[in-house]
Formats: sequence, C-alpha cells, structure tokens
Amino acid sequence: MKQFFEGIPKIKYEGEDSRNPLAFRHYNPDEVVLGKRMEEHLRFAVAYWHSFAWEGGDPFGGQTFERPWYPQDNMERAKLKADIAFDMFDILGAPYFCFHDLDVRPEAGSFAENRDTLNEITDYFAEKMAAGGPKLLWGTANMFTHRRWMSGASTNPDPDVFAFAAATVKSCMDATHKLGGENYVLWGGREGYETLLNTDLTSELDHMGRFLNMVVEYKHKIGFKGAILVEPKPQEPSKHQYDYDVATCFGFLQKYGLEKEVQLNIEQGHAILAGHSFEHEIATAASLGVLGSIDMNRNDYQSGWDTDQFPNNTPEVAVAYYHILKAGGLKTGGTNFDAKVRRQSLDAEDLVAAHVGGMDICARGLKAAAAMLEDGGLEEALSSRYEGWQTPEAKAMLGSDFESITKRVLAEEIAPDPRSGRQEILENYVNRFV
Amino acid sequence: MKQFFEGIPKIKYEGEDSRNPLAFRHYNPDEVVLGKRMEEHLRFAVAYWHSFAWEGGDPFGGQTFERPWYPQDNMERAKLKADIAFDMFDILGAPYFCFHDLDVRPEAGSFAENRDTLNEITDYFAEKMAAGGPKLLWGTANMFTHRRWMSGASTNPDPDVFAFAAATVKSCMDATHKLGGENYVLWGGREGYETLLNTDLTSELDHMGRFLNMVVEYKHKIGFKGAILVEPKPQEPSKHQYDYDVATCFGFLQKYGLEKEVQLNIEQGHAILAGHSFEHEIATAASLGVLGSIDMNRNDYQSGWDTDQFPNNTPEVAVAYYHILKAGGLKTGGTNFDAKVRRQSLDAEDLVAAHVGGMDICARGLKAAAAMLEDGGLEEALSSRYEGWQTPEAKAMLGSDFESITKRVLAEEIAPDPRSGRQEILENYVNRFV
Amino acid sequence: MKQFFEGIPKIKYEGEDSRNPLAFRHYNPDEVVLGKRMEEHLRFAVAYWHSFAWEGGDPFGGQTFERPWYPQDNMERAKLKADIAFDMFDILGAPYFCFHDLDVRPEAGSFAENRDTLNEITDYFAEKMAAGGPKLLWGTANMFTHRRWMSGASTNPDPDVFAFAAATVKSCMDATHKLGGENYVLWGGREGYETLLNTDLTSELDHMGRFLNMVVEYKHKIGFKGAILVEPKPQEPSKHQYDYDVATCFGFLQKYGLEKEVQLNIEQGHAILAGHSFEHEIATAASLGVLGSIDMNRNDYQSGWDTDQFPNNTPEVAVAYYHILKAGGLKTGGTNFDAKVRRQSLDAEDLVAAHVGGMDICARGLKAAAAMLEDGGLEEALSSRYEGWQTPEAKAMLGSDFESITKRVLAEEIAPDPRSGRQEILENYVNRFV
Amino acid sequence: MKQFFEGIPKIKYEGEDSRNPLAFRHYNPDEVVLGKRMEEHLRFAVAYWHSFAWEGGDPFGGQTFERPWYPQDNMERAKLKADIAFDMFDILGAPYFCFHDLDVRPEAGSFAENRDTLNEITDYFAEKMAAGGPKLLWGTANMFTHRRWMSGASTNPDPDVFAFAAATVKSCMDATHKLGGENYVLWGGREGYETLLNTDLTSELDHMGRFLNMVVEYKHKIGFKGAILVEPKPQEPSKHQYDYDVATCFGFLQKYGLEKEVQLNIEQGHAILAGHSFEHEIATAASLGVLGSIDMNRNDYQSGWDTDQFPNNTPEVAVAYYHILKAGGLKTGGTNFDAKVRRQSLDAEDLVAAHVGGMDICARGLKAAAAMLEDGGLEEALSSRYEGWQTPEAKAMLGSDFESITKRVLAEEIAPDPRSGRQEILENYVNRFV
Repeated sequence: MKQFFEGIPKIKYEGEDSRNPLAFRHYNPDEVVLGKRMEEHLRFAVAYWHSFAWEGGDPFGGQTFERPWYPQDNMERAKLKADIAFDMFDILGAPYFCFHDLDVRPEAGSFAENRDTLNEITDYFAEKMAAGGPKLLWGTANMFTHRRWMSGASTNPDPDVFAFAAATVKSCMDATHKLGGENYVLWGGREGYETLLNTDLTSELDHMGRFLNMVVEYKHKIGFKGAILVEPKPQEPSKHQYDYDVATCFGFLQKYGLEKEVQLNIEQGHAILAGHSFEHEIATAASLGVLGSIDMNRNDYQSGWDTDQFPNNTPEVAVAYYHILKAGGLKTGGTNFDAKVRRQSLDAEDLVAAHVGGMDICARGLKAAAAMLEDGGLEEALSSRYEGWQTPEAKAMLGSDFESITKRVLAEEIAPDPRSGRQEILENYVNRFV
Repeated sequence: MKQFFEGIPKIKYEGEDSRNPLAFRHYNPDEVVLGKRMEEHLRFAVAYWHSFAWEGGDPFGGQTFERPWYPQDNMERAKLKADIAFDMFDILGAPYFCFHDLDVRPEAGSFAENRDTLNEITDYFAEKMAAGGPKLLWGTANMFTHRRWMSGASTNPDPDVFAFAAATVKSCMDATHKLGGENYVLWGGREGYETLLNTDLTSELDHMGRFLNMVVEYKHKIGFKGAILVEPKPQEPSKHQYDYDVATCFGFLQKYGLEKEVQLNIEQGHAILAGHSFEHEIATAASLGVLGSIDMNRNDYQSGWDTDQFPNNTPEVAVAYYHILKAGGLKTGGTNFDAKVRRQSLDAEDLVAAHVGGMDICARGLKAAAAMLEDGGLEEALSSRYEGWQTPEAKAMLGSDFESITKRVLAEEIAPDPRSGRQEILENYVNRFV
Repeated sequence: MKQFFEGIPKIKYEGEDSRNPLAFRHYNPDEVVLGKRMEEHLRFAVAYWHSFAWEGGDPFGGQTFERPWYPQDNMERAKLKADIAFDMFDILGAPYFCFHDLDVRPEAGSFAENRDTLNEITDYFAEKMAAGGPKLLWGTANMFTHRRWMSGASTNPDPDVFAFAAATVKSCMDATHKLGGENYVLWGGREGYETLLNTDLTSELDHMGRFLNMVVEYKHKIGFKGAILVEPKPQEPSKHQYDYDVATCFGFLQKYGLEKEVQLNIEQGHAILAGHSFEHEIATAASLGVLGSIDMNRNDYQSGWDTDQFPNNTPEVAVAYYHILKAGGLKTGGTNFDAKVRRQSLDAEDLVAAHVGGMDICARGLKAAAAMLEDGGLEEALSSRYEGWQTPEAKAMLGSDFESITKRVLAEEIAPDPRSGRQEILENYVNRFV
Repeated sequence: MKQFFEGIPKIKYEGEDSRNPLAFRHYNPDEVVLGKRMEEHLRFAVAYWHSFAWEGGDPFGGQTFERPWYPQDNMERAKLKADIAFDMFDILGAPYFCFHDLDVRPEAGSFAENRDTLNEITDYFAEKMAAGGPKLLWGTANMFTHRRWMSGASTNPDPDVFAFAAATVKSCMDATHKLGGENYVLWGGREGYETLLNTDLTSELDHMGRFLNMVVEYKHKIGFKGAILVEPKPQEPSKHQYDYDVATCFGFLQKYGLEKEVQLNIEQGHAILAGHSFEHEIATAASLGVLGSIDMNRNDYQSGWDTDQFPNNTPEVAVAYYHILKAGGLKTGGTNFDAKVRRQSLDAEDLVAAHVGGMDICARGLKAAAAMLEDGGLEEALSSRYEGWQTPEAKAMLGSDFESITKRVLAEEIAPDPRSGRQEILENYVNRFV
C-alpha cells in the first residue's frame, strides 16, 4: 500500500548534524520545551487539499502531477487517495490532518449524493484513525470551487445557494464532529465581490452574519466542543473578500454578536496579501482574544497572489511562535501546512521532503521563541518602555478628562522628552536566538 | 494684499467650451443637481496644510517653494500666510477650509505658548470669516510632526505625551468650536508602530480608545454640535497604523463603545494604500453607518506612498459620488482637497489651477453620479439580482436553522443554477454617464 | 449557425445618445480622424484565447461557462468553436483576430498530430477569411499550458523541450504566414524561474537569445513580412519572467543583436504588474524604436495578478493612444483585446457587450488623443520646457567635457533657477479632451 | 574627542556565546573563509549619509535626532561631524566609508564655494585616513536634495543644470581620486519623471547617456583606476527613475556603449521596490558582467518606500553572498551599509549597535554561503538539471535551425517527459547552512 512512497522511510529525528534529506534535524516530538512536548506545542496538521487534491494547475497551466488517484471523480480512487494520504501522515508522524469535503469525495452536483459520499469516506477515515492514524485538527466545506458558488455561498444573491451552503456546512460539521475534529473552519473565498456595481454590501454582510450565527447555533445543538474558526483573507479569488484581515473579522464578529463564539485561523500568506506581517495578525488576534489556529504557509513577497509555500525562513517563523507562546500557546488550534509543493515538484519525495523541511523550520522557530521567552530580554525591554503607565498618576489620568489633564500640563509645564525606541538593539537581540 | 496671486482673477464658471485654464468648466455652484445646489452637494474645502504649510520637501529633497511667509516660525508671517490663504479661498470661491494647529501657528515647544498663538491666529481667522470668508469644515491637531510625537500621541509609551496630546486636542477643539467648525478630525499618523518588538498592542489600543472617549466626552461638555471624525490610513509614516481602514476603525469603535459617536473621514489615497478602492471605503462606511466626510486626493497607483495629488480621473470620482449620493449625500462632511501640488509646481498659478481642476473633476463626477441615479439603471440591476431575497420563503430561511434548511434542500432537490453577474454590461452602462 | 448569439444583431454605430447596450456609441469605423479612418487607426483584434478557449476557471474555482464546444478535445468541436468565433467577429465587425495554436486545436501530446490538426483548422479559417472574415493580426504558440512546458520552453533545462518548442513555433509561423498574418508574437510565460536555486540564468538567457534569432532567421527564410513581436510581462505564472518589461526586453534584444529585428507587444495589465503605467511602456518602446502592437486589457490596480479586463477608463486609454499617435500610429500592430469577461459573466451577450464597450472606450480615447494632438497644447508645453537645449551653446556642451563645462560654470557663475513643471495645469489641459 | 560615543568601547569579536550587545558574535575580521580573510571578503563600508547627515525626518515628521554637529550649515560643525564619524569608523573597525559631497560640507548655493568646502573637508579626511582611518569605498555627488535638482541633474530640461551637474561630478570625482577611492557612484534619484506629460523621454535619456560617457572619459583622463558604478532604483523620489533595475541599466549601458566601462551598485531595498529579490539583482548583474558593489540595507516588505534598514535576516543575506561568491566575490566593490537607524533610535549606542548587528548578520551570511559552496550541493543539483545541454547533439542544435530541428522532432518522435524541479528539497538544503 505504501508503493506510492516506495523507498521513503518513516521520518525520524536525527539531530542537527544529519545530512539525510528525509530526516528531522530539529523536530523531535518528545523534546520538552517550556515544560511541554514539542509535538503538543506545534500540533502539526497536514492539509489534504494542497497535497492530495490540487493537481498542479495555475492560471496559465494545467495539471502537472500524475497520481494514481486521478481523475478524482469516483469513490474507488477517493479511497486510494485516502490510503496514500494516511500513508504520508504516518511517514511524517503528523499528529493531525485537515480536509475540505471536496478534497475527499467526488463532486456529484446533488447535495444528497455529496453528503452520502462524504459520510462514506469519513467512515473510511474513522477506521484509519482508530487504527492509529492522526487526529482531525479541523474540517471545512469547500464553497468556492464549483460554479454554483461563483457569486458567493452565504452571500449569494440567490437564496437557493444560501440554502445549499447551509446544508453543506451542516454535513461537514456533522462529519467533523463524528471524527472528533478539534475545530471547524470557514474560509469565505467567494464571500466578497468582483465589482461593487452589482453588489448589495449591506444585505450580503447581514446574510453572512446570520449564517455564521447558524453555525454557532448548530455547534451548540450537536454538542460540538471544538472551536469555530473564520479564516481571514483580503482577496483572491475575489477582488475583495469580507473577511479581509484579523481586525476586519473582529469588527464583523462584534457586529453580529459573535466575538465570544468565534476565533480566527490565521495564515501567513493571507497576512502578507493584506499588507501585514504574520506576527502582526497573530499578535492582533491574541490582543483581541480571537487567536485560534495558524496556517503556516508563506507567500512569496514578490508575487501578488497566494503562493502557499512551505515555510523556510526561521527568523520569521520564530517571531510568529513568540507571539503564540506569549498568548499562552495553541489550544484547540494547531500548525497546519496549508502549503503546496511547487507545480514542478513532481515526485512523491518532493511531497514528503517539503513537509519535513516545514516541520523542521517550525521546530527551530519554536525553540528560538521559547529561548527568547526564557531569557526574558524582550519582555524586560517592554516593561521598561511602558513603565510610566504603572504610576498611580498615569492610571488616574486615564479616568479623568481633558480639562483636568490640561490643567496639569500647564501647572507642571509638561514638555515630554523622547526616549529611544531601541529597535535595532532589539532586532540584534532576537538574532541571538534565531 | 493679493499680490501673491497677482494677475489671477476670481475664478468663474465659463462652461465646457472655455479654454481658460483659470475658469471652471463644470463647477457651477448655483446649478441645481438632484434638487440641491452643486455647492451644497460638494461642500468643497481647501486644506491649509498642503497648500500653505508644506514647503515642497520629500524624503530625498528639501524645500522647493519660495513663499513670502517662510520660514514659518513667527506670528507675523503666520498672519501674512493667513492673508494669502484667505485670498486664495476667495479666488476659488471655496465655501470651507480646514487646518491643523501646526499649519497656522509657529511651534514653540511649550503647550501654553502653542495654545496662545493658536488662539491668536484663530481670532484673526474669525475676523476674516466674519468679513465674508469661508466657513470651517474641520479643525485638527497635528500630533505627528514634532519629535515629541515620534512614538505616538495617545498611544505613546510615555504618559506625559498622552497628557500633552489631551491638552493639545482640547485647545484645537476649543478653537474649532469657536470658529463654528462643522467637524473635528483625528488622524493618527503616529498611533501605530515601527516594530512589534517594542510595542504593547493591548495597552496602546486601550489608551487610544480611552482618549477617543475623552474627545467625545469633551465635545458634549462644550456643546460642540459637529461630528467627530477619525481618518483611516494603513501605514506611512508608521509601519502599521491602528486606524488601518474603514472596517478596522469600525471594529475599534465598537470595542470602545463609540460607533454611534464617531464617524470616518475617508481619503482616496489612504484607501489605495490599504488595498481598497475609494468607492469600497465609502460604500463600506455607508453600510456601517459611519460615513462622515471625504478627502478627495488621489494616490498614484504606482507609488507605494501617499502622493496626495489632486483628483483628475472623472470615472473614478463619479463612482465615489455615486455611493455618497446613494447614502444620502454629505451631511456635516465635505469634499476636502487634502492634496498638494507637485514639488516642481512652483508658481502661485499652479496652486490655484490645481484646485480649479480638482473642483471641476468633482463637479463632473457629481453630475455623472446624479444622472446615473436619476436614470436608475444600476439600482434596477441590483434589485433584479437580489430579488430572490424578497420572497417570504427566503426571509423565513434567515430565521430558521441548518436542520430545517437541509430538509428543504433535500426535499426540493435544490441545485442552484448560476446567473450572469453582468459586470461588463454594468461597466458599459456607467460609461454612458462619465 | 448564429444560434449561440441568437437575438444578438450585428453591432452598429448609433452615436452618443444611443441607449442600446449592443450598439457602438463612439466607434464609427469610417469616421476620419487625423486623416485616417478610425478602423485603420485602431485595428481592433479579438483574441480567441480568452473569449473561446478559457472556461472561467481561476486558482480557486473551475469552469463556470457552459459552451457547446466544450470539452475542447476534438476537431469537430474545434470547428464548431471556429464557426461561433467567426460569428462573433462578424457581429462585432472586428477587422482582425489573433490565436494561439492551443486555442484552436485539441492537444494531442505528439508534435506531429498537433501540427496536423493546426493545419487542418487553419485551412478551415482560411476559407472563412476568404469568405469575408477578418484578417489575422497575429498568431502565436501556447508554450505554457501543457505540462511539458512547466520549466520553460526555449529556456528549459531539457534540450528536448527546446526542440519541441522550435518545431512548435515553426508550425505556428507557417500557419500564420499561410493566413497572411501581419505579425507573429512570442510570450514567454514560462521563460523565467520559480527559484534561483535551480536556475542557470546565463544558459537560459543564451538559449532564449538563440531561439529568438532562429525565429528571425526562419521568418526571413520563408519570406514572412510581418513583424516579430515579444510580449513583456514581469511575472505570473512564473515568479520571475525574463521579458520583464519594455526596458528589459530592449536590453535583451541588444545583447542578442535583435533590436532592429524584433518589436514589442505591450499589454496594459503587464505594464501595471511591472510597476509601470501603460503609457510609460508605450512611450518607452516608441523612444527605443520597438513599439509594435498593444494588448488593450486592463488590470485591476488592487489585484496583484493579471485580471485581463476590458478597458473602461477613457482618460487612461486616451493617454495611451496619445503616445501611439505621437509615435506615428500602429503599423503592422493593432489593438488586441487580450481580455476576458469575468467568470460570472456567463452569457453570450456578456461576451459581445464586453467587446462593444471596449471598442467604444478605445474609440473615445483615440478621438480625445487626436484632438489633443491637433490642439497642440502638450507639444507646445514640451517645446517650451526644453527650449534651452535648442541653443548652440547647449548643443556644444554635449560634445564637450567636464573640464570645459566646469570652466564655464565658474566663469559664468551658473546657479540655475528652477522653473515650474506645471504638472497640474497639464493634467487639467488633458481633462478638457477626455 | 570620543565624547559623543562616551562609554562605547571599540567593538571586538567575542564569539557566538557573547551576550554583549556591543561585541561581534560572528564578524571576526581575521578569520579565513574560502582562503581569504573575512574582512577582505566583506569589505564593509559605513555610509556618512544616513548615519551623520540624516536628521531623523520623514514625510510627516521633522528632525528627531539631536547631534552636536547640527545645524549642518558651517564648516566648523562639518569638521566636528567628521571627527565623530571617524570615531565611529574606528569603534566599528570599519575598513571603508562612503560619502556624498552634501553629507560632508554645507550647501552654499554657488558651485565654487561648494567645491572649495568639499576640497577643504576632504583634505581633513585625508589626514584622518593617513593617521589610520578607513579607506574610501566610494564617493558620490548628491544631485537630488537641493531644489536646483528638482527636475533632474543630467536629464534636466535646463542645460544650465546639466552644466552644474557636470561641474559637481567633476569636483566629486577629483575628491574621490585624491582620497584613493576605489569606486565612484552615480545614483539618479531625480533622473526620471513625475509625469510623462511634461517629459521628453528620448532627449532626457540621450543627455543621461552622454553625461555618463563624460564621466568615463574624465575617469580615464585623470587616471582614476576605480570602477564607475550606477545604482539602480525604480522610483522614489521620482514616480519613475530611468535606472529602474539591473536589466534596465544594462540595456541603457549597451545603448550608450558603456557596458564594458560601467558596473552596478545593487541595493537590497531598491531590488524589492522594483519587484525583485536582492539575489535576483545580484545574479542578473553577475550574469551580465556588471556586478560592482552592494548596498546591504533591507526594505520592509510591507512598506512601499525605501526604509533603508540594517539587514537582520540571515537566510536572505546568505543567498545574496552565495551569488556574490559564485561570481568571484567583491572586487573593487564592498558591502556598504546604506542604512539608517529608525528615527526613534535616538542614542549614539543605537547607531553603533545597528552597525554591529548588520556586520554580524553579513558575517553569518557569508560563512553560510561559503559552507554551501564548499559542500557543493547546489552546484551539483544545477549540473545535474542541465546535463542534457552538455551533449554534442544539444550543442549542435543551438547552431542549427527550425527546419532541421523539426525534422528531428518528427523522426525521433520527441515528446519530453518533465522532471521534478526539486525546489523544496533545495530550500531544505539551504536551511542546513543558515
């Protein structure tokens, strides 16, 4: 059954000096970092989508991969794909995986048949999971590929599409719940617009708000204990997507009364497209209390679209984990590789090696982040910079008003003297660890 | 006194056939559009900042303009500047102007002296306004130029800067109130960060939220009837600014209980920098109920920084006014030219002609937008596209839940059939008017 | 045979007051502009690629269109597609069309079969052209869609791919020559790299240079009189493409001795992706003597990828034609709509209306550009600005050296006094015409 | 004399375990890497411009630094500045420095006075250099700050500005030659345009080409043995700059017959602004034979303008040096920190620490690059990927033509089978070293 990965062994930790491209040099699941096993910190998940459903196409080119489970249009090949996917989860020792409904079953056109094949394949997953396979980090519904979604799912001008979306999400939540999924994700790639000329913003947002409330209501109804996660992205495929970035999603959640019920799944690539850094989005979500999970796949800074590459820059990854650790670590969430090998990376070995490299970079980043926290230099610098706000006078000022503050400014002839922000010194400090 | 503008006459409307570069070809203040005079629709304001305070510098070059009121460091030249500014307001027939404190008085270093010179010069303005000068669209405090603000105003790590900012805003609100200003604006160019490494996001946002509440409390205390406006911008000068865009500001206002008290001042250039279109930001603000006023100055699409150019593209301007008119038009807000002539545009004539061109483009855009609304084609297309949502079944669905919707999808075998979005046809329609 | 376009009449010119969405309001082929018929100025071409071969997919979604000629995998449907395409050329009154080999024939996998089906279908075209159909503006080879091209065509690490590319281009040049094509185009979407780590820049560029020389050699050999055109694009699908922009292509052409033999096909969307304006690329090509033809399809300024939309902004289009007219107009080249309707624009009417709108915008732009040239205001301003260079002293200076110039600077105490660049006045001037 | 840097010792190498923020952890000048001392590989230079002339301003804010040599308007303070600058060179052990004329002398307005003060201060430098100070990597003329340059230097519409530029460059080349400078640099920040409407592209480029030829002629005349370097940048301050990127400059050099005489000074930040990576620009210049020197200062990927930050990402820096080492290393060029501390980094310690951190990152990057080259894995992968081109048949094909190649494709039924590009495996490989 492992013939697709013939010759590729189960990946082991061999330490930094290893020159084996199919070994971990940094990721040692059982190594304890800040009192917790590395595996429990990182909670790696492999994404079915990019590794098994995407065929290597891009806007100017078709399929490049040749896989035994193509074409992906019947249940027999869906099961073969599952066998091979679970082989890879095993090879990598990945504790989690994630999937969209469309990744794992053929598209039939009718809701009933889609639901039935989803149930069949997830039963097949359940057996594999029971037999020692990975756990499910999250499930989700693909409501962007089929032409029915072209003008949106919950925000579609056609209420029948809203209905089809509701039924679809229900079926995916049911499957996720059945498999013990720890989260349920919604990414609204078509919830947005191509042109304002044909768009009723207010209705669409209201419909999306109502839909998300239905998700939360249904979660409680079925007793799903996982988190509901929304995934921000500013654009692509749409010209504008409503879940633009963390701050936009937070405003939306507040407006529809959901900020205590829904958290965010933050992706590095999407952060970049929105004009932010990954750590900005993580720190903002943590600050607003909505940090849920991460998609650890980078974008090329030069390319104005999602490139979904495996992470490969330790300093960047370290800062991301630093903010995650500061916020108390990942809870129901995990580190999902929503990443794809390049379309020229044709071989099974490429698929495995890409994950090995990504896991190693994350492990390096995590260890560096933990070391920084243990050393405490950044925290100390922060306390020192803001120490003025710890005085009773400063605290009292926040409870007062413009008139009394003005009196004090005049009486004390306050004329603030700037202090250095010490940015380069702090950057050098970080470089001691990465 | 008009010697700076020697040879430049008061600008008149001469109609489309005029070849006079110092005449309006489209802006006819008294022409009635949709039942209202054009002047009342557009509510043009001239910005003191760019036209009289900026000296032509850029990051690689110094002053290029030579003005009789330079250097801007004493009250005598501040009054000469005021004389010339009001001459230009008169030449243009501008009904409004706007200013920062720093635009109109020298910087002294001490709050008391800054407040006193601000009061002195605004008394001087009051005389000119009483003598037939324009009204004040809004006042604001420059809390970004002086080095004391380098690490933020209300978000500064040093509580003394918060205090200085509070006193400064109070003095500017007092001056704005005294002059009958119709709005008060806050732009937080330094409310953000250069690096997360030295930034306490949560405290900074809480301080900014408290500060804005103080502004609102003080407004009510002094009986200021104008609107409080926050101006979104994603970055520049800071790497990240908290008031990133309309959606981000709305989330912030909700979090600090201010979404009924504060509106937004939306700038085309800032929309572009945030990855949006101007009309997106206007339509979003209108949809969220926070559309206040606009800064009608474009950015160059190729330049990754604020270029603050006068508008010159009628089709773009028309779509912006279309969304404003749909939202009921500008109320306390106006059309402010937060625009500067290029640093190579050295002459007084450039300054006047730039405003004339900008006002004309806005007038053309407004008339086109009004014609589209009167024709009704876009509204009709929108109604038709969303008509499915008007049925009782669709409305009932929004009040129901996933289970009953799923039952219906199965029972009715719902399989939605996509309809054309007709984008190009709508774009062609718009081109009939612009 | 016209059943696909049932109910859609041949498009006529009805003038500006027409409200018929399927009529020209500006494009009147026989109207004389600057002494030449509008049709001869604009030389419109319809692109087979976007309108008949693209199925509505994007990176996150599949086919949305449903066309009688899908799936595009046999010759019978290839002929049906041709029938419908020529119907549309007729409906639009388009004087030209353009195609890639892959647009018009199925992909067989073997070169021989691909060549034979290409010959068969182009014979079929020849009949239609002889029967009054449009002329061929240019032909080209699609060397980016099939997986064989994934690592480049002439720049592929595998010399067999170079060979396959050579044979393919020969077959396309033969077909183009047979049909009386007026140009032959090369767009190198895969001539570039995904990562420098696996790329030998020097070899790849040398191979590309040699390949282009072979194209020119073959052109002369067969007596093809049309122009050879290279189409610049900076990226997408590749991370970096060698034909980045006009200036880069010019450097490449010089290096391989081709700057007299090869011209450029300039696309608005590609200009934007490279950080330029369309008019910049046109003016640069004109200045360097390599302006060939244009692809008149705009990119969305907000989207970091090619959106290939129909033009809809008259002021932008007018400036493009202004630079073309200044350079003497299009010669062998034309105005090709390398544009696609949005994937939500499902109907045959959308396809026709999009072209009608695009042609009208171009006609408006052309007339505005011609009017500006006739008025002469911009040319006059330019002459006046540079008039100093017309003096014998200035011309002599260019022939001299640093030492003699320095002597003169010292002797004459030269201290230049800046003059206004008058940018806003010129922008206002342009707005009189657009 | 060291009082500005009071308490800051001469920086020493202390090794990786050092926690001293004012010690080198990686830069050990005498350590031998690939057979050469690290100091000779890296050839570090400190830029006078950012560290001593820039006062902390940005487009929205004024001076933040307070230095004893401000205001920079007389020769006494120019000498004090020199004293302090040379103190810092000494503290850092920097082997080189660089300067613009305007960095080191006050601006007088007249050429004669500017030349005289330049000569006076460079004599002062000469003494310091003779007394053990650093060598001069390059000199250059600032032809962008003063208002006389606002419309260009050699490309100015006013020939008097061309003359003033010629005299200025002559004076700077003389000073550079006198000080034994190893290169002379030209950066054309104003050689470009704000709007095409007022620009004669062809004349401006011809004037720039002639000017650069005069530079080369003068170099030979005075026997200057250093390299003439042009520094590419796409925009900022201008909307478009003629020296856009490496490929554009190469095209320009060829057109004006200078590709053997002039090399390029490549900056990471400028590469980013042009849509490239730093390693792309370096590799392209190396491939074209025009790699001269580097400015090792990064841009923030989120900010659309030059941020000129000290490098802090080892993986990025390592790849840059990898391409430099592959090209044979830096010859007359060096690693110049054209970088500035953030405007909030007020203290002398910030200035020193920023350089220390930057030098360390470069040393780490160089060592990683050298280790990769010694290991040979990337070179081996490259040879293997392109090995097909080493066969006699492949080489013969390059000398043949389309017809004979086509015959072979048909005869041999060539149907290329793609091979994996192995990108992720190569990226993982690089991560073993960085």
